[in-house]
Amino acid sequence: MKLEHIPVVVHRQSAPAARLSGHARVLMGEIAASLQKLLEHGESTTIDLLAMPLNATDLEWLRQQLGQGEVRITLSADGESTLQETNCPGVWWVQHHDPAGGVLSAFIEITPVPDLARAHQDDMQSGLERLTRQIEELTGPQGRVGG
Amino acid sequence: MKLEHIPVVVHRQSAPAARLSGHARVLMGEIAASLQKLLEHGESTTIDLLAMPLNATDLEWLRQQLGQGEVRITLSADGESTLQETNCPGVWWVQHHDPAGGVLSAFIEITPVPDLARAHQDDMQSGLERLTRQIEELTGPQGRVGG
Repeated sequence: MKLEHIPVVVHRQSAPAARLSGHARVLMGEIAASLQKLLEHGESTTIDLLAMPLNATDLEWLRQQLGQGEVRITLSADGESTLQETNCPGVWWVQHHDPAGGVLSAFIEITPVPDLARAHQDDMQSGLERLTRQIEELTGPQGRVGG
Repeated sequence: MKLEHIPVVVHRQSAPAARLSGHARVLMGEIAASLQKLLEHGESTTIDLLAMPLNATDLEWLRQQLGQGEVRITLSADGESTLQETNCPGVWWVQHHDPAGGVLSAFIEITPVPDLARAHQDDMQSGLERLTRQIEELTGPQGRVGG
């Protein structure tokens, strides 16, 4: 059997990486415009990344362009949510995961601090009631006045 | 050699754990009062834990009493800062570490969201300027109008 008869298949990448679609560059401009709107009018913007015609290459390019900032917020509920500040303060890369770690949704949020990190009035009120009961239990009945 | 001659030393904990000083219980009441002030007047409070006469047992007891909430914020600068929501929304356990991981300072913050997590106007303005230059470089000179 001669060498040239040996079947040789040159494998390129099994799934060639998609090329940058151009949508990601447009999105960069939208992020800048949203940040300007936030600075001028205090108006926050949320961009749903999975609802846009972005391919994996676009998303990776976008993530690299925006870079990584100092603040990272994690929220552990059923699945984990990560809110990573980009290198541009006020621009956050937000991902929600299912309990197995799969990405359920991905957003760019343009806001001073994502709403998910903020304690809400109702929750603080319930927390205060729990804390007050806890203190009463610690103090014991003799510490309570009129109750 | 008889058994009773074998020297036996019963080791208790080498450094007996300090007892709860009572300051931690008082602090619980202050946290509740601060949370009420936040709910009624929107006023945030910061309590410097290391400036108070709390021993390690107090701190551990306090941490257990307050529990752990869903939100955790980490800020990676020279050293890491961790801002852990307690089980009481609006009450945060904040620690700043030196680059080697030692605790530099520890606070209880009673606020909807700690200020450290929030992007500030000046930083967002600088970020927008960087982002705009970045977009101009991507677009190239032909994309620029008037410069």
